[in-house]
Amino acid sequence: VAYAGDVDHIAVAAPSQPVSSTPCRIGFVGAGQIGEPMVRRLLGAGHQVRLYARRPEVGERLGALGAGLVDSAPAVADGADAVITCLFSDEQLAAVAPEVLAAMPTGSVFVSHTTGTPGTIERLAELAWARQIGVVDAPFSGNAEGVLAGSLTVYLGGNGDVLARADAIVRAYADPVLPTGPRGSALRVKLLNNVLFASISQLTLGAIEAGRGMGVTEDALQDALRVSSGGSHAADYIRELGGAEAYTGRVAHFLRKDVEACRSVAADLGVNLGPLLRAAADGPIDVHLS
Amino acid sequence: VAYAGDVDHIAVAAPSQPVSSTPCRIGFVGAGQIGEPMVRRLLGAGHQVRLYARRPEVGERLGALGAGLVDSAPAVADGADAVITCLFSDEQLAAVAPEVLAAMPTGSVFVSHTTGTPGTIERLAELAWARQIGVVDAPFSGNAEGVLAGSLTVYLGGNGDVLARADAIVRAYADPVLPTGPRGSALRVKLLNNVLFASISQLTLGAIEAGRGMGVTEDALQDALRVSSGGSHAADYIRELGGAEAYTGRVAHFLRKDVEACRSVAADLGVNLGPLLRAAADGPIDVHLS
Repeated sequence: VAYAGDVDHIAVAAPSQPVSSTPCRIGFVGAGQIGEPMVRRLLGAGHQVRLYARRPEVGERLGALGAGLVDSAPAVADGADAVITCLFSDEQLAAVAPEVLAAMPTGSVFVSHTTGTPGTIERLAELAWARQIGVVDAPFSGNAEGVLAGSLTVYLGGNGDVLARADAIVRAYADPVLPTGPRGSALRVKLLNNVLFASISQLTLGAIEAGRGMGVTEDALQDALRVSSGGSHAADYIRELGGAEAYTGRVAHFLRKDVEACRSVAADLGVNLGPLLRAAADGPIDVHLS
Repeated sequence: VAYAGDVDHIAVAAPSQPVSSTPCRIGFVGAGQIGEPMVRRLLGAGHQVRLYARRPEVGERLGALGAGLVDSAPAVADGADAVITCLFSDEQLAAVAPEVLAAMPTGSVFVSHTTGTPGTIERLAELAWARQIGVVDAPFSGNAEGVLAGSLTVYLGGNGDVLARADAIVRAYADPVLPTGPRGSALRVKLLNNVLFASISQLTLGAIEAGRGMGVTEDALQDALRVSSGGSHAADYIRELGGAEAYTGRVAHFLRKDVEACRSVAADLGVNLGPLLRAAADGPIDVHLS
């Protein structure tokens, strides 16, 4: 399982199914490690894509495949049925999205792939409301390979027609697509998943360490967890990445980032994730909670 | 965690795979909810079974299938190649096993299915050593239906010829059979699995509760966990048992017992399960740690 640079988590994705949706005019902002293969899949599914690419080489590659290149983020919105943003952080989303929304046609749909705060999505929805632009939070799990295979896991927060239109478009690269409830719910589900992943990772690494201290090899414990009640996707990933030591080296950085993001979103929402955050911070991987 | 049900009326299933082991003379003590179907499967695989059954109706049922009935636990050992005990607690094992071992032939094998302490197994091994009786710890995961289907998960602690002989016999009702390392290691692996199961259960129940507090339905979260990095066998069981509330009602009792057992075994072994035990105690299910 490949762990991509600045993305969230590896997903346990089902195989992709044939994609059939009406071709749309799509604006795209954020053609990075994940966004670039998204655009490839959108073009492959027959959509028209207008793209703002900060890096010229990305624009060249995608332009050669048929993407229309524009020289600012708001310019992607011109005539678009939908705009997709795949931005790294909540700060980037909050900075870029308002001017994009201002340029979008009445009745279009805005899809954000950023694992950000529900608060930012709500502020964007307020800006979008007067012109009936639907705003959908669409955080994902997976990596660039999953996007190219059409098997990215995408969570969608939204209702009715807006949800249906976002669903039809992201299926160019996503399967499964998981509707989680009203706008903002996908970010909440992603938050809960991430803090569970972090805490189960820590507990499993702790059990491996404790096992070593009592003469149980990591392999013996992992063979048991594979078929026993204490097993988890986190335990599977530890095994697939080559064991606790390799996993800690490769995942610690992401885990810290995720836990910190969970902590701040939970505080923002005023919910108590106490035991989950304690378990996430209390293990072999050093997670500093501010 | 064994969710044993009423097995009387369930027919003996054919072995999932052809069980080919030389027929042995097996002594059996502890024909309860799990032990009774074990005896059925041993008889079905062609073994001779000598049985001490405290409850006359169990003796009648198994006698009708060909088990030889004796009137004391040590009497099952007469001429046995192997003795299997399936006793409820470490205390029962410590009380019954010494006189059984004393009656076993030189060079035979003693298999204990109790999820007890490594200390008790070591004391039994000391008693068994002089007459080259092999002692194998064989805790299991599963229920009576799994036994009857030949699909009980059994962990085996032991080496060499003793392990091979125990493996060949328990395969009458077990698949997978997981060798975990030297004698005592199966109990350690089971301990680590159980404390992981308890703590992951608590974290997942906590995430479901937190989700409810922020407008995420249990179904939406569970749909996500099924295919996302935060998923686990515990989350699967919560779903299969009908949700967090039903799960808490049915599993709380077992979880408390498991966590208390883990705590005392860890203390016995002098190992630190601190974060794991804290996470196991720190959730919606009330687990009192003494």
